[in-house]
Amino acid sequence: MSQRITLKQVAAQAGVSYQTVSKVLNGQVRVSKQTEQRIWEAARLFDYHPNQLARSLRSQRSHLIGYSWVPAAPGEDNPILDQFMQSMALAAENAGYQLLAFPHRPGTLWTEGYRTLIETNRVDGFVLSSVEYNDARIVLLQEQGFPFVAFGRSNPGWEFPSVDIDGAAGMRSIVEHLLSLGHRRIAALAWPESSRVGQNRIEGYFSGLEYAGITPAPEWILRGEGIYLFGLESTSRFLEGPADQRPTAIIGFNDVMAIGAIHAVQQKGYHVGTDVAITGFDDLPMSQYLTPPLTSVSQPTWEVGQRVIELLVKILNGGPLIQAHVLLSPQIIIRQSTNPIVMG
Amino acid sequence: MSQRITLKQVAAQAGVSYQTVSKVLNGQVRVSKQTEQRIWEAARLFDYHPNQLARSLRSQRSHLIGYSWVPAAPGEDNPILDQFMQSMALAAENAGYQLLAFPHRPGTLWTEGYRTLIETNRVDGFVLSSVEYNDARIVLLQEQGFPFVAFGRSNPGWEFPSVDIDGAAGMRSIVEHLLSLGHRRIAALAWPESSRVGQNRIEGYFSGLEYAGITPAPEWILRGEGIYLFGLESTSRFLEGPADQRPTAIIGFNDVMAIGAIHAVQQKGYHVGTDVAITGFDDLPMSQYLTPPLTSVSQPTWEVGQRVIELLVKILNGGPLIQAHVLLSPQIIIRQSTNPIVMG
Repeated sequence: MSQRITLKQVAAQAGVSYQTVSKVLNGQVRVSKQTEQRIWEAARLFDYHPNQLARSLRSQRSHLIGYSWVPAAPGEDNPILDQFMQSMALAAENAGYQLLAFPHRPGTLWTEGYRTLIETNRVDGFVLSSVEYNDARIVLLQEQGFPFVAFGRSNPGWEFPSVDIDGAAGMRSIVEHLLSLGHRRIAALAWPESSRVGQNRIEGYFSGLEYAGITPAPEWILRGEGIYLFGLESTSRFLEGPADQRPTAIIGFNDVMAIGAIHAVQQKGYHVGTDVAITGFDDLPMSQYLTPPLTSVSQPTWEVGQRVIELLVKILNGGPLIQAHVLLSPQIIIRQSTNPIVMG
Repeated sequence: MSQRITLKQVAAQAGVSYQTVSKVLNGQVRVSKQTEQRIWEAARLFDYHPNQLARSLRSQRSHLIGYSWVPAAPGEDNPILDQFMQSMALAAENAGYQLLAFPHRPGTLWTEGYRTLIETNRVDGFVLSSVEYNDARIVLLQEQGFPFVAFGRSNPGWEFPSVDIDGAAGMRSIVEHLLSLGHRRIAALAWPESSRVGQNRIEGYFSGLEYAGITPAPEWILRGEGIYLFGLESTSRFLEGPADQRPTAIIGFNDVMAIGAIHAVQQKGYHVGTDVAITGFDDLPMSQYLTPPLTSVSQPTWEVGQRVIELLVKILNGGPLIQAHVLLSPQIIIRQSTNPIVMG
């Protein structure tokens, strides 16, 4: 195997972080003249080219874009995969690329899958999804200076090209809808603090309530895995309180938790929509067929697929990125699980 | 573009169909000694090699397997894509291959997508799904002598390697379950006769009833698109008849039609499960959360993914296929939408 000059060596020589090297060499950021000069000198010293340039010079581009995703748990739905992949495959083919779909493997084996595809020159770049905090794939790809675009953000301050759905905005629109119906005690079936998407969404919950002058009681927020059983059991707990204190509306951070909430309300003999409003997030295809149909938030999946490929192709073609971060708005879909509150 | 000797020319010279040429050259079928000799002589005359052999001789194998699928309609679910692709991607990678996912395009454009990937040596073989009668992709691939395995069968008599789910067996198990609960008037929300999968399933419906000595009345079978609205409207028609003549059980050929049926029964004020039993097919993840939870048929998607890749890799490695047709059994999942009939 040939010795590989990594960004890290260039960065150490230039006395900057490897993220900065990556950004400067890809024209993604402006730094001081001196710093930029130091970086280019270090790169020349080691004869370092960002991989995509080196590879296109050698005409060894595969015109393949690697993509791998976290599979849905058994018995659960993957609400975006079909449309997301169709959108990416079409955008890629129109730009002369094709998608290489490689399997998810648990833990570090997954990162190794990315590494193998890089080392074998199998792909020109990657699209990442299910991006989390401290995502090891991002560390690897930035260290290798390998092109990628992420569907989703990661740690605050980490700099990489991304397209994301504005989960906070989606959640704010849910809160505003519930407020407009007269709800004031609005509970949340939220995700653990370790969930990056969960943190985006809960920001919208807090800011939406704050705007209306409401401070949520700590007991209105329960955090757990986004599964049916958690929605069912947590909602039973919400409903234990006295009628003038318990929540009148419950926001599920996904549709599956919201379905658990619907069933808990119905098991208690209450009416969903009038007695207790329930909302979801994701707008699964089947959520329109629930009893009652679920108010939820629909994500612009097709648009995300188009934009991640558009960004990645720009990077692969060596063009500078004018806008390396795209944030798309989701859309609230109002159905019968939310109704004007009946005062009594 | 180089002149391409096609199977068709070899077949014309040998005086047999191109399907026969393909099968004989791939060791997939035994014909008479004379016929086999005639085919090999014709192949030698034109210096014809089945593509996969020619390409492996030239060491130009891409180790990519092409896959494209029909996307779900907006607002509908794709019940198998996630698991099917994960399964194929894993099996392929374990065998030294990777999946190339290319976009669905309407009509003949889709077939052209397959042709382009063949002509550019982009893939070594294909996996097909959503196989229909007179499938133009199969005609193309057999004519080109290009390796593929289909998830699904096509015209009776068409010979190609396939893995399929035994839809007739799944439907028979649904009928037997309903019969065991006391149902005799069992209606079907079926697909048009042009649907290959629909024909497999309805065979099971007929044979299951026939075994119990029941001839279904013509008005018990309605055919249409597998959508919610068709299930809803057709079930309303089923329920118009007098109580001692109308169906007591309704079989949806997929879950979405069954959900329409559930809502039609409930709108009429009847109770699903006791007054009218409803069943689906596919076992969508959300079907367990319906009111009432839906009895359905679960498909062995993971297993299909493993087997299609196993077959294709055998073909790509030049090995003879011992078993070129795999038929896997689906599994009935019984829930509260079917209950013992209450005689009254």
